[in-house]
Amino acid sequence: MSATSQSPQRSTPTQDSVRRQNLGALLRYVHVSGDTSRAELTNQLGLNRSTIGALTADLAGAGLIDEGAPQETGRAGRPSLVVRPRSSRVYGYALSIEVDRLRAARVGLGGKVLDSRELPRPAGTAVRDTVSILAACLHDMQRAAPADAVFVGSGIAVSRMMRHTDGVVRMLPPGPGATGAAGAETRAGTDLGSALGLDRPPMVGNVADLAALAEHTRGAAAGLDNVIYLHGDASISAGIIAGGRRVTGHGGHGGEVGHMVVNPQGRECGCGSRGCWETEIAQHVSLDRDAVLACVEAARLGDPTARTAVGQAADWLGFGVANLVNIFNPTAVVFGGALRELYLAGATHVRGRLSTMALPACLEHVRLRTPLLGDDAPLVGAAELAFERLLADPLETAEP
Amino acid sequence: MSATSQSPQRSTPTQDSVRRQNLGALLRYVHVSGDTSRAELTNQLGLNRSTIGALTADLAGAGLIDEGAPQETGRAGRPSLVVRPRSSRVYGYALSIEVDRLRAARVGLGGKVLDSRELPRPAGTAVRDTVSILAACLHDMQRAAPADAVFVGSGIAVSRMMRHTDGVVRMLPPGPGATGAAGAETRAGTDLGSALGLDRPPMVGNVADLAALAEHTRGAAAGLDNVIYLHGDASISAGIIAGGRRVTGHGGHGGEVGHMVVNPQGRECGCGSRGCWETEIAQHVSLDRDAVLACVEAARLGDPTARTAVGQAADWLGFGVANLVNIFNPTAVVFGGALRELYLAGATHVRGRLSTMALPACLEHVRLRTPLLGDDAPLVGAAELAFERLLADPLETAEP
Repeated sequence: MSATSQSPQRSTPTQDSVRRQNLGALLRYVHVSGDTSRAELTNQLGLNRSTIGALTADLAGAGLIDEGAPQETGRAGRPSLVVRPRSSRVYGYALSIEVDRLRAARVGLGGKVLDSRELPRPAGTAVRDTVSILAACLHDMQRAAPADAVFVGSGIAVSRMMRHTDGVVRMLPPGPGATGAAGAETRAGTDLGSALGLDRPPMVGNVADLAALAEHTRGAAAGLDNVIYLHGDASISAGIIAGGRRVTGHGGHGGEVGHMVVNPQGRECGCGSRGCWETEIAQHVSLDRDAVLACVEAARLGDPTARTAVGQAADWLGFGVANLVNIFNPTAVVFGGALRELYLAGATHVRGRLSTMALPACLEHVRLRTPLLGDDAPLVGAAELAFERLLADPLETAEP
Repeated sequence: MSATSQSPQRSTPTQDSVRRQNLGALLRYVHVSGDTSRAELTNQLGLNRSTIGALTADLAGAGLIDEGAPQETGRAGRPSLVVRPRSSRVYGYALSIEVDRLRAARVGLGGKVLDSRELPRPAGTAVRDTVSILAACLHDMQRAAPADAVFVGSGIAVSRMMRHTDGVVRMLPPGPGATGAAGAETRAGTDLGSALGLDRPPMVGNVADLAALAEHTRGAAAGLDNVIYLHGDASISAGIIAGGRRVTGHGGHGGEVGHMVVNPQGRECGCGSRGCWETEIAQHVSLDRDAVLACVEAARLGDPTARTAVGQAADWLGFGVANLVNIFNPTAVVFGGALRELYLAGATHVRGRLSTMALPACLEHVRLRTPLLGDDAPLVGAAELAFERLLADPLETAEP
């Protein structure tokens, strides 16, 4: 028998796949941008008016968008119809397992939070032990959801760190049969999926990656294609967007910028190495949110020890950012979590390090920013994951 | 007037765009893989047999592929036809402006070098001053090309470094009206395009990025989607592939890993900073190819000073690689240029640093490799750029 006759006979891409692609592109645009005129869709998607009309009719028929007259613009002529994402017909679940808390939300198209729960994460609770708590939240929200609303997917943000019962925050230990945090993440996804009876497990990412996705989609780095989002949360990890795409590495473990060694003579780090970036910062100001806030406030009130500490921590912050700028040539660096306050208090030090250590060509277009979505970023990013399948194939996925 | 009536009426994607996409995918597969059975194409592209048959007929008609019987396999049954890239019908130009030499090649589909030239690059010759030399090479090769062969594009690899008349290699200075090396690269592309009367300027990349592209496409990292290619050539720069795509940053300046500072107490670097990764390595073994070879050879013969130098340089090499592994979670690190010999001589030191400094999860699947394409990698990568337009739209681009 020849190899040919054994090969699977997959279907040929047809007009259908083009239509599906266009439906997804239009729905994604409206999901991210909110109310959009048909004229803008015509421009942005490069499709003609009759095609846009046919696509919006299909999406409206499926209950995914509404069309209506725009707000009065004062311009003459017939105004273009406005397309709005409809948040009630389909929903996803967004979950976030952070160092200190657990969050769950039911989110509608357009990113609208329809329902949400937040609970503390007890110290010493491993990711897998949070599953039953989150499952109870979801069951609760599911009962409150309208009977005709369609569930389209879920996403979950998992912190690589946990607070142990001794109060110390450490990286998640590798578990049996899986490696490190990603192993825990994958297990959490699978466990949650089965605990909830979902027909597909949640899509899983780490907190920094999903906060980066959120700020890139709807926040401080919207419209920018090369972004480093730094998440300070006991440790420092990065969510990296390069060329408009998430850089997560082979096993999803990339972005461990906190363990970039910047000082061979530095302090021992919990990872077993010495002089890691996060350790050098933390020897001056602990990367715990409350500790940063307290130190920054003391510095603001004139405490000389606190001022020195903030200055030195911010100097190290700039040191590592300069390295990342040389590696990634980004257009934005976003300081998230505990790093927000440190950056705001020590921006002069950060900029000083950048100007002496970053190559001019790499630094030229870099903007330093704080998050627009604040603490919601990981949850918003998880919601973006939840809608991925719908936006790839709107009509099929939205079917009850 | 409404906004709608001002919007351009672009065409709707149709069956045509699907066909163009499939033609490109098939031709790209054969261009990269060489001789391929129709059965493999059916499997790999997810298209059915009749579609593959129609696509190969179109491409054969345009002179881009040949079909024929395969080599005897000893298997029973009717063998699947084999599709081969045809290297004589269309060609691209690949150019490489390196620290010490200039190279130009006429390359056929499938990556076959049809003609090539190599010249020394005189010390002190700026990129723009190499244009007339390369233009003469291309004219020469153009005269030798068959009259019916169709030119489809060109790519150019530019080193960010140049050897000055004082013998010292330094980074290209920023030029007026453009920034740094990318400015020089863009100018070189535009200048070359007009010097040759090409209807479109060459696509330009830096040496490390294009060597990475080459090793990713046809070399030591083929089939791997997360790759760090390190190019040692007086300095160290990286070509980075993440998720199968090149990471070049906003202005194409990314990958300046040699200026990641790893030692705040280190030596002054030519960039104005102190303790850059490449400076820490180079204080033990100069990153000039000949110097590395000489030192490695002396160490092999038992010279104690050379052995210590190689060990310390390789230790620093591993130090920086560990940082990059934590940031990128790659599946391969390829040691190119002058770093090849240093890595081979000091692999134990490199692995030692990785095992103590890289996080286990990030390191788990990393393979350390040397280039398969050797010194040809930048030129091979430039050739890949040259074929980009053809592979996006084969029939249109191949028309005489």
